Amino acid sequence: MNGEARATVQVDDGGIRVTRYELGPGDRVAWHRHEHDYLVVPITDGTFEVVTADGRSAQRATAGEPYRRGAGAEHELVNGEQPYTFIEIEFVSSASTASAPTHPRSS
Amino acid sequence: MNGEARATVQVDDGGIRVTRYELGPGDRVAWHRHEHDYLVVPITDGTFEVVTADGRSAQRATAGEPYRRGAGAEHELVNGEQPYTFIEIEFVSSASTASAPTHPRSS
Repeated sequence: MNGEARATVQVDDGGIRVTRYELGPGDRVAWHRHEHDYLVVPITDGTFEVVTADGRSAQRATAGEPYRRGAGAEHELVNGEQPYTFIEIEFVSSASTASAPTHPRSS
Repeated sequence: MNGEARATVQVDDGGIRVTRYELGPGDRVAWHRHEHDYLVVPITDGTFEVVTADGRSAQRATAGEPYRRGAGAEHELVNGEQPYTFIEIEFVSSASTASAPTHPRSS
């Protein structure tokens, strides 16, 4: 049954927020907006779709290959056929926090 | 043959430095001192020894279970029998950088 990703906050100390996301086949991380710059560290390989206001794109992640994104990103993630686990590290205290929302659609 | 861990810097942008460490059985991360607070994200499970000025301690890491440590930590890591991969994220721009070295021994 496709459902919501399981999100577990592992560190949240005002400087960083570290959340582990575990997705089964077809699970989603519902529409959300990133208030802070963040780093994703895939724990497993992953194939998924990212849905933005401009459309859908198929993406791949490789275990141990982190990638960094900026504040303001707004999207939904829909997992593919394989379970996928990643760690998201948000840089809460760094200067880079998003300005006003760019897209009214809220999760 | 026991050797040095393979270290690959993946992000180094003045705000954070992200390095992937890959260790074979018995490989080491030679004696070093952490200048910045850091977060370790294990990609695989790991069993290893940490050697400090006060002695050795056996430790375990679990894939997807990050742990945070402070600047100033000074140690060597000696891997156990299984290959171990982890990602280290150093918070370079945050206020928490270490003061003078506490232990003269250099790697």
